[in-house]
Amino acid sequence: MQNSHGDTLSNLVFDAITFNSQGLVPAIAQQHDSGEVLMMAWMNRESIERSLASGEVHYWSRSRNRLWHKGESSGQTQVLKEVRIDCDGDTLLVIVDQKGVACHTGRRNCFFTAVCGGNLKTIADVEISPDELYGNSAKS
Amino acid sequence: MQNSHGDTLSNLVFDAITFNSQGLVPAIAQQHDSGEVLMMAWMNRESIERSLASGEVHYWSRSRNRLWHKGESSGQTQVLKEVRIDCDGDTLLVIVDQKGVACHTGRRNCFFTAVCGGNLKTIADVEISPDELYGNSAKS
Repeated sequence: MQNSHGDTLSNLVFDAITFNSQGLVPAIAQQHDSGEVLMMAWMNRESIERSLASGEVHYWSRSRNRLWHKGESSGQTQVLKEVRIDCDGDTLLVIVDQKGVACHTGRRNCFFTAVCGGNLKTIADVEISPDELYGNSAKS
Repeated sequence: MQNSHGDTLSNLVFDAITFNSQGLVPAIAQQHDSGEVLMMAWMNRESIERSLASGEVHYWSRSRNRLWHKGESSGQTQVLKEVRIDCDGDTLLVIVDQKGVACHTGRRNCFFTAVCGGNLKTIADVEISPDELYGNSAKS
């Protein structure tokens, strides 16, 4: 498979990544300009290849057990800016430009529940209703 | 156990977190002011309790199979600002004030290797040598 620059994707990249026993690696998505942490999901080798080749982020959905093109049903895609690998090779940081909202609840990011004095507090509003996002289709 | 506000830590918090089969949940550490993603590590229930109680971040070290007070040997601790839980309850975002550097390589964060045109590129410099950080002690 070729990446967005037309180069053959080097095994060097995959040799630097340690996948778990399920062939997955956690991937943190961060908004490129604001620094907002949007979500965390999982990638396998194919989802990394497709992300690099297409320029839009793909994950591996553990619940649906299939490749997941983020935004495939909602239109809330993530334009890939850069993939970074951590010092141990077992976590990815995916720098993106999020179209619309990242969270299936219609919030900008998935981390909208804060622990506060031993209780939980919702710290972000819904920006788009899930009905509007998905209608009757599957969440993504 | 009590949290830093002196309240009994509610089961509400732990009921909202989905630990994996090893009793762990991934935790992303983000610098509170700059938004920089510093690292990703794992927490179990006790590490969350200790982080909230002490105000300094604790993880579960999978390689050492023990509780890990971040910075215990290097002094590069993380002051806890807030714990956030994602929409599925299976990932934490830990907002911190990182003292010094987060990475055992002496770099500010662990994501210093970028995938670039099918190759790898180092995008951050070492700020403190590992020898200075650790001497002969274990990495943290």
